[in-house]
This record gives sequence, structure tokens and C-alpha cells, in this order.
Amino acid sequence: MSLYDKRGVSAQKEEVHAAIQKLDQGLYPHAFCKIYPDYLCNNNDWVNIMHADGAGTKSILAYLWWKETGDISAWKGIAQDAVAMNLDDLLCVGITDNLLFSSTIDRNKSVINGDILEAIINGTQEFFNILKETGVHIHYLGGETADVGDVVRTIAVNGTMTARWPKSKLITNEKIAAGDVIVGFSSAGKASYEHEYNSGLGSNGLTSARHDVLEKYYSIQYPETFESSLPDEVVYIGKNKMTDTLNIEGNEIPIGKLLLSPTRTYAPLLKKILEDLFADIHGIIHCSGGGQTKCMKYLPDNFRIIKDDLFTVPPVFNLIQTNSGADWREMYQVFNMGHRLEIFTNLAAAEIMIAAAASFNIKAKIIGRVEASPTKELVLKGGFGEIVYPY
Amino acid sequence: MSLYDKRGVSAQKEEVHAAIQKLDQGLYPHAFCKIYPDYLCNNNDWVNIMHADGAGTKSILAYLWWKETGDISAWKGIAQDAVAMNLDDLLCVGITDNLLFSSTIDRNKSVINGDILEAIINGTQEFFNILKETGVHIHYLGGETADVGDVVRTIAVNGTMTARWPKSKLITNEKIAAGDVIVGFSSAGKASYEHEYNSGLGSNGLTSARHDVLEKYYSIQYPETFESSLPDEVVYIGKNKMTDTLNIEGNEIPIGKLLLSPTRTYAPLLKKILEDLFADIHGIIHCSGGGQTKCMKYLPDNFRIIKDDLFTVPPVFNLIQTNSGADWREMYQVFNMGHRLEIFTNLAAAEIMIAAAASFNIKAKIIGRVEASPTKELVLKGGFGEIVYPY
Repeated sequence: MSLYDKRGVSAQKEEVHAAIQKLDQGLYPHAFCKIYPDYLCNNNDWVNIMHADGAGTKSILAYLWWKETGDISAWKGIAQDAVAMNLDDLLCVGITDNLLFSSTIDRNKSVINGDILEAIINGTQEFFNILKETGVHIHYLGGETADVGDVVRTIAVNGTMTARWPKSKLITNEKIAAGDVIVGFSSAGKASYEHEYNSGLGSNGLTSARHDVLEKYYSIQYPETFESSLPDEVVYIGKNKMTDTLNIEGNEIPIGKLLLSPTRTYAPLLKKILEDLFADIHGIIHCSGGGQTKCMKYLPDNFRIIKDDLFTVPPVFNLIQTNSGADWREMYQVFNMGHRLEIFTNLAAAEIMIAAAASFNIKAKIIGRVEASPTKELVLKGGFGEIVYPY
Repeated sequence: MSLYDKRGVSAQKEEVHAAIQKLDQGLYPHAFCKIYPDYLCNNNDWVNIMHADGAGTKSILAYLWWKETGDISAWKGIAQDAVAMNLDDLLCVGITDNLLFSSTIDRNKSVINGDILEAIINGTQEFFNILKETGVHIHYLGGETADVGDVVRTIAVNGTMTARWPKSKLITNEKIAAGDVIVGFSSAGKASYEHEYNSGLGSNGLTSARHDVLEKYYSIQYPETFESSLPDEVVYIGKNKMTDTLNIEGNEIPIGKLLLSPTRTYAPLLKKILEDLFADIHGIIHCSGGGQTKCMKYLPDNFRIIKDDLFTVPPVFNLIQTNSGADWREMYQVFNMGHRLEIFTNLAAAEIMIAAAASFNIKAKIIGRVEASPTKELVLKGGFGEIVYPY
């Protein structure tokens, strides 16, 4: 039994995929999101999409940070997580603007007060205000906040987005082909529209990261932050406190802040790239749950994907690996490890994309390529050696 | 401190209302749902709505029923709850058709298996198939199911709906006026599109109902079904087991089934009423959280609302009251107590509506009226005497 199984999470979500098999899978089988006919307006040239996602167990890190430091600001980051995890999935089908958003927040009122709700809800609107400055318009159409302490230990912050989009502007991954290069866009650093260093972590893999990095103290002090039947050997087994610091580029940053770093959205950058280079984009992948193996789910045919010039691993992932002792195969299968978005394209367009990213202060480079192959195969190469994932 | 406070729930959701104060409140201040401009198509004659709601703590009742009996079917009812709580809110602004739906399900994988996810997800589609037969079309556009056992004790089942609707077909409650009669539509019985007796309970007030009705056995046997810091005196303090029965119209029905009775939707009936009598409808209220006092939040002016011919209380509410000892004031403030939907209209239209309801085998009658008043006031009269709620 893996640590994942013991902790009641699954990187591949097998049971979930089995449960949704009978549902309408949408118009484009290889697209990153499910895409449906334009039910709202019955226009054959347009489509409708609803997409749901959330901050997952990252809300627990905000809770621990708030309890330990009294700092409520981390909850704004959770608001951003719930938005960015949706928005960046939608970027992958080419949608970058004019979205509707609704929140779904379930809280345990006995531990989560009204100030936290305000921080999350107003933080959501503030994030939309920042995005609006970059030309990305998201309309906040309310939502539901429920007091359900018998169901939720602390708080679950989810969101749902709705889009209506022209078919002619969709990215469906069907154009991915042998000979494509893959441009990776760094998940870490400080983009021009961010106000502090981003560690690069998304809102996935956080159950593992939290238990692997944080020390047993949290198990004793905050039993409300984990399933009570978990074996002690998988609960908060790390070496660190939230307030321990890591030196990054000369700054001492608390580990709690690194783990809580709000999920970067690539929306402002992708809006520009999609406007300028739409015809050259063969596929877009958000390296969320599944990390660097995520792309394998959306290939239109058998290909060998070779990623042999990956980004230097940002410190937060080294921190997680040092604590957990996970091997590279597992780390790259759970975390993005350096780039959370990748575009499949041609060489000429890749260079323009890399320049566009630079203008947003986001590092980008060609991290790999697509080769013809009789089977689906993913090869990662780097200082860690070579890892082959068969599919 | 009230039982509600002790249990970490609030019938009036004061903190939630404070938290959302800074958000855009939409185009129609008295409408039952928040209504926004047509961002999706920029047509001034249309509006957009996103609405979120869920089964709340009713999922715990399904869990207990499944654990005690092995019967998985109750989870289909939870799917219906998450839909109907959204749909019937939208009915109140006049929306009855052509909706998009997305699920948000957070589960604790260590206690909720894949079969339950399948029952909920396929149950959602099956409920849409039933509604389609009545002319109510809801498109299931997927959703998110997350394994977050460190956040969720059992399972949280939520849903979000999106609608685009013509302004000319909206009900905004602005026409509610002195002289109106109020038609109540029974929440209990067996509507023509239901396949078994409906107890009349919605998906609200269930934290109270569950703890007040079910006996201490559940506290010892299923600690995963309540917040562990709750004082013992408020946890499962009732007299009953899920499998105890109540005789209703000659049939012995398990109490668990009465509490789990899927929230009735009035959509098929309201579709007909809105088509035939739109101009006569002054306001529509879904008596969910807040019960028979819910209408007071949506009045366009100061009125005295008199409800003096309420429905005979369905047995499930008597069961709750007998166990909890709650007074009538509280019962009517939390539960619908007999009708979960009411329409403000004129006398002539009321009679046609009542006949329309009969054609769906839903009892309906004039339960009250609107009077001019210098202040907002609600008066309930019945066998219990007279209850005045000041506002």
C-alpha cells in the first residue's frame, strides 16, 4: 500500500474516472476540458463549458498558518487557488476571457470564522480586479457558503466557471504531432502581475506535501486537520514547522508561505499567445494533478514524449522531496517540478512564445519534443537520469 | 446559546451575509437569486445567472442509512437534493428550462467508495432524464470530484447551475403588493413525476433534524458524522433509529427514508404555471433555509404577510418536533412545514394554479395574503395559535 493509498488520496483518480464513464464526454475527446454544444444560444459555431475545481487540501495549510501566526492573508491565496485551478484548465482549450465564476464554500463554523469567509470572498474579487488589468475579464456571480461542520473539518473552497466560446478559437489537442516542440512556462519566480515570489506549487499534491514536510507537532496540536483514522506513520511526518525559513535568492521565506504560494495563473500570458499565435498552437497542457505526466492523457495518437531539458527544480519541490524521500519518478508524477503549463507547437512559434513570456517576467524554454512511436511513452531526462513512463 | 449555535449552524447565516456585502448584488435587489447582465452574449434583453447549492449535511443521513442497511439507493436521492435545491431557487426568478449543471463532490475516500460516487453521478443524470420527460431540460456538463479526506469527514455533494434568460420572462418579486394572495404548493405526497411518497423535507435544517431525531447510538457508532468538539448534549439526542418506522397513510415507512426523502422539485409544475400565467405572478419564494419566514427577505416594500391557512403539518415535521421539543415559532422558521414553494398572485390566477397543481398530483391552496403595513411583519395563524415575527 502506497503512502497515497494510506492517506486516502490517489494521484490518478481511478475511481473518479470509473464513476463518470457513463456521462456525456463532450465534443472533443482529447481536449483538456469537456466541451459541449452551445445549449445556451443554439449557435452551431459556439460551445459551452462549465468547469469546477478548488483549493483542495491547501485550505488546511492556510488554516495552520493562520492559527500559528494570526495572519489572515493566506486565505486570499486560497481564493486565488480556487480560481486559478479552474482558469488554467480553461486556458488549455483556448479560453482566456469573458468568464462567469461562482463560489462554493463549505465551512465548519466552530473553527472558521466570518473574517475568513470575508478574506476568501473579497480575495476572489480582488484577484479578478488584478486580472482585469491584464485584459482577462471574469465576472463574479455569487455562490453558496454553507455551515456544515458535521461534514467539513475546516473549510472546502471550490469554484465553478462558465464560458461560451467560438469553435474556431478552441484548442482541442488534435493537432499535436510528431515533430512538435514543447514549450514549458516556469511555475516559479515573480511574474509581472504577481506581487511576490511564487514558489511554483499548484493546488495539487498538497495532502502529500503537507504531511511529508510538516512535523508531528501539527498532528498533536491540530487534529482537525486530518482524517482521524490515518495511521500515525503517515500523518505529519516531516522535519519542519510552518515558520521555518528557506533562503531563496537571498530572502528568508517561511516554509508555510512557500507551501501556500498562490497558484500562478498563466491567463495574461496565454491571452497574448493565443491572440498572436493561435494557428501555431497544437496543444496546451496544465500540469496539475499528474504533474509532468499529465500530457499523456490528452494525446490524439501514439507518440513518444521526450522532456529532456526540464527547468531547474524550484526549491519548494526540493524541500518536499528532501522531507518525503520520494524518488524522481514519483515527484514528477505528482508535482509540476518547474513548469505548470506547456504548449505543443513548432520551433518558430516557440521562440515568439518564449519572448512573450519574458515580457511578463515568466521564464520559458523548449523543454521537450514529440516523436513518432508505436506506443504511448513518456521519457524524462535530466540530472536525475532517465525515467520512462509506459502507457 | 441556542442549540443551533452549539451545533455550529445558523438558520439566518448572518456571517455569510456580512461576508458577501461587498460583492455585486446584481440587477434586481428583491429577486430570489442574483441576476446579472448578459456577459456571455452582451444582449441587453437577456441576463446571466450562476447559482450554487448542495445537499448539505443530508449526505450524512445517506451515509448512516447505507452503513446500517447496505442500501446504496439513498445516494441517488442526495444527487436529486443537490439539483433540486438549485433548480427550485431558479424557479423563483422564472427560470424553468435550458440549464447547465456542474457537480462539485468532495469525498473522504477512506469511508466513501467508488460505488457511491457512481450512484451520485449517475443518479444526477437519471434525475435529469426524468425532468426531460416533463419538458425541463438540464444539461450535465461534468464537474469535479476530489479526494480530500483531511478536509471532509464523509462527503459533500454540491452543484452549480448556469442559465441565460430573457429579461421579459423574469420574476423579480417587485410586483408583490397589498391585496395579493399567496398560493402554497404542498411539499409532501407523491407528485405525478415522483415514484414514491415524498416526506416534504428539503435539504435544509438537516443538522438539527438528524441530531434531534436520531439516538445516541449513532454518536458512538459513527463519530465520523459530527464535529468532534460538539458537546455531547447536542449530538444525536433523539429517540429513534433510522430503521424505526412511522405509519403514513397505511404504509410503514422507515424514519431514515422520511428524513432522506429527496427534495421535491416543482419545476414541471412551475414550467406550466409560468407559461400560462406569467403576467399574474407577482413573486415566487422557495421556502428553504428560513422556512415559512423566507419570504420576508424578498419583499419590495413594508408589508404584513399573513399566513393563516397553512397546510396540515406532514408527519416528518411532527416527528422532528416531537423529538426536539422545538416550539412552533422555531419549527416554522427552520422547516417548510408543509409547502416548500409559494406564489404571490391574484385570486383568479390562484385558482388556475391550484388546478394546475392538481394535474401533477400536488396539493395547493391559498395559504395567506399580503396586507399594507407601516413595517415588515409576518403573522402565522393556525391550530398552534398566532406567531408574529417582527422584521
